[in-house]
Amino acid sequence: MHFSRTDQDSLYSVIRSRRDMRHFDPQGSVDPVVLERVLAAAHHAPSVGLMQPWRFIRILDDVLRETIAEHVTEERLRTASSLGSRKEEFQALKVEGVRECAELLAVVMVPDDGTLFGRRTMPREMAVASCACAIQNMWLASRVENLGMGWVSLFDPEIVRKILQCPTGAFPLALVCLGPVQAFYQEPMLEETGWRKGRSLAESIDENFYADKKSIDEGIE
Amino acid sequence: MHFSRTDQDSLYSVIRSRRDMRHFDPQGSVDPVVLERVLAAAHHAPSVGLMQPWRFIRILDDVLRETIAEHVTEERLRTASSLGSRKEEFQALKVEGVRECAELLAVVMVPDDGTLFGRRTMPREMAVASCACAIQNMWLASRVENLGMGWVSLFDPEIVRKILQCPTGAFPLALVCLGPVQAFYQEPMLEETGWRKGRSLAESIDENFYADKKSIDEGIE
Repeated sequence: MHFSRTDQDSLYSVIRSRRDMRHFDPQGSVDPVVLERVLAAAHHAPSVGLMQPWRFIRILDDVLRETIAEHVTEERLRTASSLGSRKEEFQALKVEGVRECAELLAVVMVPDDGTLFGRRTMPREMAVASCACAIQNMWLASRVENLGMGWVSLFDPEIVRKILQCPTGAFPLALVCLGPVQAFYQEPMLEETGWRKGRSLAESIDENFYADKKSIDEGIE
Repeated sequence: MHFSRTDQDSLYSVIRSRRDMRHFDPQGSVDPVVLERVLAAAHHAPSVGLMQPWRFIRILDDVLRETIAEHVTEERLRTASSLGSRKEEFQALKVEGVRECAELLAVVMVPDDGTLFGRRTMPREMAVASCACAIQNMWLASRVENLGMGWVSLFDPEIVRKILQCPTGAFPLALVCLGPVQAFYQEPMLEETGWRKGRSLAESIDENFYADKKSIDEGIE
């Protein structure tokens, strides 16, 4: 398989226009065939030692979704309280679309299966990283399907583990909101709203050794 | 930006044909313009609270690359020793291309900047996940540029941190081998060599609650 300049431009457009979405069309739905393609993309992700430490749980039950939504609201309030002087600014932001998105999924890291290949020295980091690669594939697949996706991390993993009846050792990493949106943010929502400004690429590249650069937004939550 | 069926097919082809490469063309090189596009793709990754916790270090110095390669060899031997009955089978596999790849980079997670947004409850997992999303973007960008990429995790992060003169609290997550390859593996190399077989997508999907499925390859390293 040899890719062309057209394929390259297409992928880079998907990568550049992908957004962490919190605003969804509450009347939207996701075609089951499209959902299958998005999940297949996730499952094609790399994983250390081919451990594939992910489980995708579709939340179909309305009561279960509401239980999760209430927990996320609680965590949002706890986060607000911990933010000090930026509490009110944070509370004015829409930070999740758990109730409105067409499809709610949880991505759960499964209990460690003991894989040693490539993770003798960093077992937990490599399992988390493998799940994150799957979620990033899911994100790009959603975007190319013209669907919005948001990764909600405003929850206590131990509480969500119990809500979803996961075994001990499983670890929910993401609540994924998926579905049609009215419009994609032009820029990351945290930049559009003035919450925080991203760094330039140049500030993230070094040669040979780690350089002691100050981040332009140091100290900002 | 609305994507078409052509864009969708293209992205899914990239996702399906991406491989963790260990065999590189030792005479290969990467056009600086292409490298810039690949790193820009990485930098366009999502990050929790827009923290962008990644640093990309290009290893240009030959002596530095050799120091890293020697450390990776040591860790490969330690991993082999820990694998018990599969030690020899592991030793017969080519597991990294640090010496042969055209470009060697380290992806380092920067010291925690205290971002609370979206990571009050899972600070470390969300920083690792953000870096992994960047690496996955890098992987897909490399593939669409017809370059091979391998994520080497056979190293002690504390030793590599010191080799790269990273500050306390920084954490090298990946040594990234990048460059031209003679051919991409048709299937993940660990499947082609019979090391391990992946699960089906269906085995990774649940509805509402986590189901107690036995992995088909349970117990395999």
